[in-house]
Amino acid sequence: MSVPDRARVTIADIAAEAGVSVPTVSRVLNGRTDVAASTRVRVTHLLQKHDYQRRGLGRTTQANLIDLVFNDLDSPWAVEIIRGVEDVAHEAGVGTVVSAIHNQPTSEQRWWQNVQSRASDGIILVTSHLHPKLQAEVHRFLPTVVVDPSGLPSYDVPTIGATNWAGGLSAIEHLVGLGHRRIAIITGPPRLQCSRARLDGYRAGLEAADLQVDPDLIHTGDFYHESGFAGGKKFLGLSNPPTAVFASSDQMAFGVYEAARQHGLRVPSDLSVVGFDDLPEAPWMSPPLTTVRQPIAEMGMLAARTLLRLVRGEPMETLRVELATQFIVRESTAAPR
Amino acid sequence: MSVPDRARVTIADIAAEAGVSVPTVSRVLNGRTDVAASTRVRVTHLLQKHDYQRRGLGRTTQANLIDLVFNDLDSPWAVEIIRGVEDVAHEAGVGTVVSAIHNQPTSEQRWWQNVQSRASDGIILVTSHLHPKLQAEVHRFLPTVVVDPSGLPSYDVPTIGATNWAGGLSAIEHLVGLGHRRIAIITGPPRLQCSRARLDGYRAGLEAADLQVDPDLIHTGDFYHESGFAGGKKFLGLSNPPTAVFASSDQMAFGVYEAARQHGLRVPSDLSVVGFDDLPEAPWMSPPLTTVRQPIAEMGMLAARTLLRLVRGEPMETLRVELATQFIVRESTAAPR
Repeated sequence: MSVPDRARVTIADIAAEAGVSVPTVSRVLNGRTDVAASTRVRVTHLLQKHDYQRRGLGRTTQANLIDLVFNDLDSPWAVEIIRGVEDVAHEAGVGTVVSAIHNQPTSEQRWWQNVQSRASDGIILVTSHLHPKLQAEVHRFLPTVVVDPSGLPSYDVPTIGATNWAGGLSAIEHLVGLGHRRIAIITGPPRLQCSRARLDGYRAGLEAADLQVDPDLIHTGDFYHESGFAGGKKFLGLSNPPTAVFASSDQMAFGVYEAARQHGLRVPSDLSVVGFDDLPEAPWMSPPLTTVRQPIAEMGMLAARTLLRLVRGEPMETLRVELATQFIVRESTAAPR
Repeated sequence: MSVPDRARVTIADIAAEAGVSVPTVSRVLNGRTDVAASTRVRVTHLLQKHDYQRRGLGRTTQANLIDLVFNDLDSPWAVEIIRGVEDVAHEAGVGTVVSAIHNQPTSEQRWWQNVQSRASDGIILVTSHLHPKLQAEVHRFLPTVVVDPSGLPSYDVPTIGATNWAGGLSAIEHLVGLGHRRIAIITGPPRLQCSRARLDGYRAGLEAADLQVDPDLIHTGDFYHESGFAGGKKFLGLSNPPTAVFASSDQMAFGVYEAARQHGLRVPSDLSVVGFDDLPEAPWMSPPLTTVRQPIAEMGMLAARTLLRLVRGEPMETLRVELATQFIVRESTAAPR
């Protein structure tokens, strides 16, 4: 059994010896510029003296951990993110600690205490809902990467997202290509950047086909099943209902299926439906769902690779990466009657 | 920032000082009887001398980790298990390291090296597919709990499962109660204990209703969607097709939905379908799926609580726990025409 080097120096040891705060040592480690030059020299010297870089990754005889943090683990794509992150971390000999903070300040605080006590090397946040003060503190102490940011991140942290606008556009191009003219959308929560980008892709697709945006055909959802069902019911009750619905999440698309079933309509012969995500269950739907694929596991993989680079102190070429979406044609779309 | 006590004594330190192997110290810690009495005394003395029990859980200033291990993270209920385990561990100030070992010896070995280097306090295995030699080694070093064992575990480890037989029986009682007489089953892989228990529950339900078991109405599946689709197609092609299908997993039930759709049949008016699991997506199906609920998150919670007790050295009342399944009636079952 290999023996972890329990005596290795910690950031706190360096801080104590240098007579500075722990955040200051973190700032030096993260290459930040808001540290006095003399302090930087002193801390860097101590880091070298104690061979602090030996904490670096890839040494399989040392404990190395990263933290992967969700608001809640009820997101259907949480497991996809975990799979991507774990795949890269496992290969690098790094353990992935998974946490859910439930948007509760006490839970966030406890998580942050735990992170510090277990000496995590870095953080992947699958949320931007951390309390701003805590987020700033986390970012000050540890390298951080944000996956699928729901808004513009406030700190200079690397973020990994998907091309939401292009994905929305591809859905509408597909439906227009099949001959649809009355195409409805169920959006995500408007406060989220990804929702707004998908809606703008929808608008751009209609505009490119010289179609008007009809406010009756826009329903504001929240990405969950129930709001897709509600939007589907509303659309099918219109005097001039749409022939196709673009749901901004697969879960909402499944809700539209159920609204169609309750109206005695069949997908796709009576109503075409397109989703967004390509959840693992999208191909199991009846009929299998045509959707915009987000490369969720790949986003997790890239987040892990980016974090490991940050931990090693490698420079980042860019802070913001969007992975391409892909349009997946299955059986839930057809030409309108 | 609290500082982890990096200098705390390790099992390896104790072993070196006692002049015994690391596994021997582990055996003493785990209260096993296969250690010579004189060795036990010497090791116990050293453990006390170095206050080894201070490693115990609940000290938020110390790093404490448990490892949660899957074969693969593609199981639709993986995230449910993670949620249950994380919930309990988080509350106890313990980090949950999630890994997938992909049934590959090299991946298993790397995982085990990583576990040792990060000084994990215990293991929850969501698989019984570890190579037997590795499984024995893991169990020798660290407290271990197995969730949802697919077969009879070979070691004296606590296991957490569900009442599969009773769950299968409840599905058939429901269908018989609706008036069905030709009820088919799609089984899981026969090598898994849970598959056999569900099939026996099916047989018991038919027997209780004085119905014959018709071999034509038993299709051997593998829990995945495709085998449910294949079984559904086979049944619907029979000259005397069933009026109801009990699928031993929700994913296979979704496959039966698709087979029915392709045959131009409606669920439930033309065919009743019952699943097993109650995956998060079961209520989003169209129609929402009637199914046997496994309390998967609760199984994860109980596994974590059991492991934390083992780590603290508390005695176990019983090694084998089965949590009750629950029959959930939604809209995929109706009386036969």
